[in-house]
Amino acid sequence: MDFHLIRFEIADHIATITLNRPEKMNALTPAMPAEIIRAFDLTDDDDSVRAVMVTGAGRAFCAGADLSSGKDVFDKSTRPGNPQRADGRFDYTLETARDGGGTLALRIFRSLKPVIAAINGPAVGIGSAMTLPMDIRIASDTARMGFVYGKFGIVFEGCSSYFLPRAVGMAKALEWAMTARNVPAPELAEAGMFNHLVRPEELMPKARAIAAEIAASIAPVSAAVMRQMIWRGQAMRHPMEAHRVESWGITNRGMSADTQEGAAAFREKRPPAFPGKVSTDMPDYYPWWDEPEYRGPPL
Amino acid sequence: MDFHLIRFEIADHIATITLNRPEKMNALTPAMPAEIIRAFDLTDDDDSVRAVMVTGAGRAFCAGADLSSGKDVFDKSTRPGNPQRADGRFDYTLETARDGGGTLALRIFRSLKPVIAAINGPAVGIGSAMTLPMDIRIASDTARMGFVYGKFGIVFEGCSSYFLPRAVGMAKALEWAMTARNVPAPELAEAGMFNHLVRPEELMPKARAIAAEIAASIAPVSAAVMRQMIWRGQAMRHPMEAHRVESWGITNRGMSADTQEGAAAFREKRPPAFPGKVSTDMPDYYPWWDEPEYRGPPL
Amino acid sequence: MDFHLIRFEIADHIATITLNRPEKMNALTPAMPAEIIRAFDLTDDDDSVRAVMVTGAGRAFCAGADLSSGKDVFDKSTRPGNPQRADGRFDYTLETARDGGGTLALRIFRSLKPVIAAINGPAVGIGSAMTLPMDIRIASDTARMGFVYGKFGIVFEGCSSYFLPRAVGMAKALEWAMTARNVPAPELAEAGMFNHLVRPEELMPKARAIAAEIAASIAPVSAAVMRQMIWRGQAMRHPMEAHRVESWGITNRGMSADTQEGAAAFREKRPPAFPGKVSTDMPDYYPWWDEPEYRGPPL
Repeated sequence: MDFHLIRFEIADHIATITLNRPEKMNALTPAMPAEIIRAFDLTDDDDSVRAVMVTGAGRAFCAGADLSSGKDVFDKSTRPGNPQRADGRFDYTLETARDGGGTLALRIFRSLKPVIAAINGPAVGIGSAMTLPMDIRIASDTARMGFVYGKFGIVFEGCSSYFLPRAVGMAKALEWAMTARNVPAPELAEAGMFNHLVRPEELMPKARAIAAEIAASIAPVSAAVMRQMIWRGQAMRHPMEAHRVESWGITNRGMSADTQEGAAAFREKRPPAFPGKVSTDMPDYYPWWDEPEYRGPPL
Repeated sequence: MDFHLIRFEIADHIATITLNRPEKMNALTPAMPAEIIRAFDLTDDDDSVRAVMVTGAGRAFCAGADLSSGKDVFDKSTRPGNPQRADGRFDYTLETARDGGGTLALRIFRSLKPVIAAINGPAVGIGSAMTLPMDIRIASDTARMGFVYGKFGIVFEGCSSYFLPRAVGMAKALEWAMTARNVPAPELAEAGMFNHLVRPEELMPKARAIAAEIAASIAPVSAAVMRQMIWRGQAMRHPMEAHRVESWGITNRGMSADTQEGAAAFREKRPPAFPGKVSTDMPDYYPWWDEPEYRGPPL
Repeated sequence: MDFHLIRFEIADHIATITLNRPEKMNALTPAMPAEIIRAFDLTDDDDSVRAVMVTGAGRAFCAGADLSSGKDVFDKSTRPGNPQRADGRFDYTLETARDGGGTLALRIFRSLKPVIAAINGPAVGIGSAMTLPMDIRIASDTARMGFVYGKFGIVFEGCSSYFLPRAVGMAKALEWAMTARNVPAPELAEAGMFNHLVRPEELMPKARAIAAEIAASIAPVSAAVMRQMIWRGQAMRHPMEAHRVESWGITNRGMSADTQEGAAAFREKRPPAFPGKVSTDMPDYYPWWDEPEYRGPPL
């Protein structure tokens, strides 16, 4: 597998995706989301992978869109491949107008494996936004985040208007977006942005320890189903919706070899060795939701 | 009224439900939800009851499903009463597949009286989940919670995939479920799980004090209506939905004898004696929602 | 413009609305919501205004409905203008039954400019509720809030059943409503009610500093669009809904003169001077939602 902008490694059931343009503070180029998406396709397809970590090479997590690529970085009509207009510039199509950061966020949202962000330094714009659909955020106290869109005259990207208030509440989401300020790690932590805030040298050990705990503790099929229960459950309008999904989940999984193994391991006080695989043993009613298609702007 | 697995007492307008299998850490048997549900039927029907407390006998709140009842505790197909299969085991029906913990959670969700959890020790699995639709959670610092489903190869139960992220946010809900870890009281408190965290000897006095404050302070009909406004309001998609419910609520209640009494007590600086009863004085447009029926799995 | 119950000033791109009945602790009379709503119409229409602050004159923010106006303050059927009944009292119509506090809250919710509450003292009932659709709440440590409805036998008003749990979570919202207690500033702050809690003498400087930061930092059109993205996004059921809105937002705004200016200012390390105006440059697909109409109670 050929990656140029990220590093991708698997060891001890843990996949690590490292944004790898340290000389540019891992700023996102238009090609980078596609590489990250490909990495998530690999982790979903590989039964040996039980957790995914995402981090940045060097001192930054991700500095956002790479502004060094020209003054028109935010102007999609300047990108070749779009229909050319009379004034020599390019127009955009429904597909080229699509926010690349949002495509990435939606892919992470659909992951079958738990995802841990190890935020090692500044995360700006899409660099902040891409961590929001990850399950667990662990940060070094050198981390900071900036929802800087308004400073560039644009608006939320990467589905951050959906995920940000769900992570830290309305008031902080609004303050940070309306001031476009760089928010330091302690203020982020106080607002609930991070599961854990640690010293720089503790960041990767802590992230790896939690990934290892996940890998050792719970059935992969349970992880995949429960991850979606939480993310989809957030949009439910009544607990009865959860009750219906959980009822078949409990019944179906309760008859599985994983449950036999989990109960036996508990009785025998030993680590479980779950036989169920995500590739072959997902319940046949998964997914229980209709995944919406991108249809362009809501006009 | 005949209870075997719980104790049920009413004193000073406060009902107390005590999970009462202390020798088994109050582990839930299949019959226990029905007793708790019956207790909530009683508290709803009894106009003298103004608040409900739920706690555990002995050192635990509730250790979850009783695993000592056999190795097939999670396998509904082994339960007599289900259709027998060719292999000698039992199949399950739509009704027997229903999650008993979810039935309990939905009953608590519908309570007409405010519900206070006094979490006196470990609460595991359904023991944790059942506290989530309660209004106010007060914990002793000996409390801990475990969303341990993945360890047994199963998934969320007791509507906890709905309630847990609403109580503590997505990131903590995901971390706790994906690691299946026992979460200690301080970490739970920091995530907002508890309204109050106190020393063990202060737990019941604190819970009783808040129950007494509720009983002495607000009109029972207001309590019943406002409780549902909050729980149902959480699922609304626009504040206009709340505005419509509140507009008739304010109008209707503003003409009530309770409001005359509340305003008089306030002017006269004395405790109010509200005449309105939940049994006879609920507004005639209550409930204003359609309660969904259980229809089995979402296939 | 003629205001009697509030003061209204604009200076340095910041509008300040001051509830101005200090001798009554700024208690709300039936006419006061209309004045505040008019002020928000002015701030929306005035392109020079980039942020709105709301505070109270004297030692209180707002003591709630003015109970000194008579014993029937909550009884809409006693208000002249309603149809007279056989018993000499007045009935109410669909329109007069409408909660005035909710009308105010919905107007603030729709504001095109970011709104900062500077809570300088007690905020009770509608005084608390009206701050909840504001974007940023800054409080003096002399602040307190009371969701006291149940004490008067009424229920939530001002859309607070929608906004309160979204601001502080279910458990705190329920505890405060069920006890009708006056909640002191530290408990409010701990629950996430305030963006910042400061000493009394620091309140207005802090609020002004944040308003000035907003005015200096981000494009007014971005502010207006992003504000609604957050508030409307909260009701979305899937991040795809946000992705569609953001995709056209990014594309449309990325081609704007504001974005050219924002990127240039960033490169040149100078403050931006955004040319876009809310009055003329809002995207033509704004609003992207259908605003629901008031249709009376949900019968």
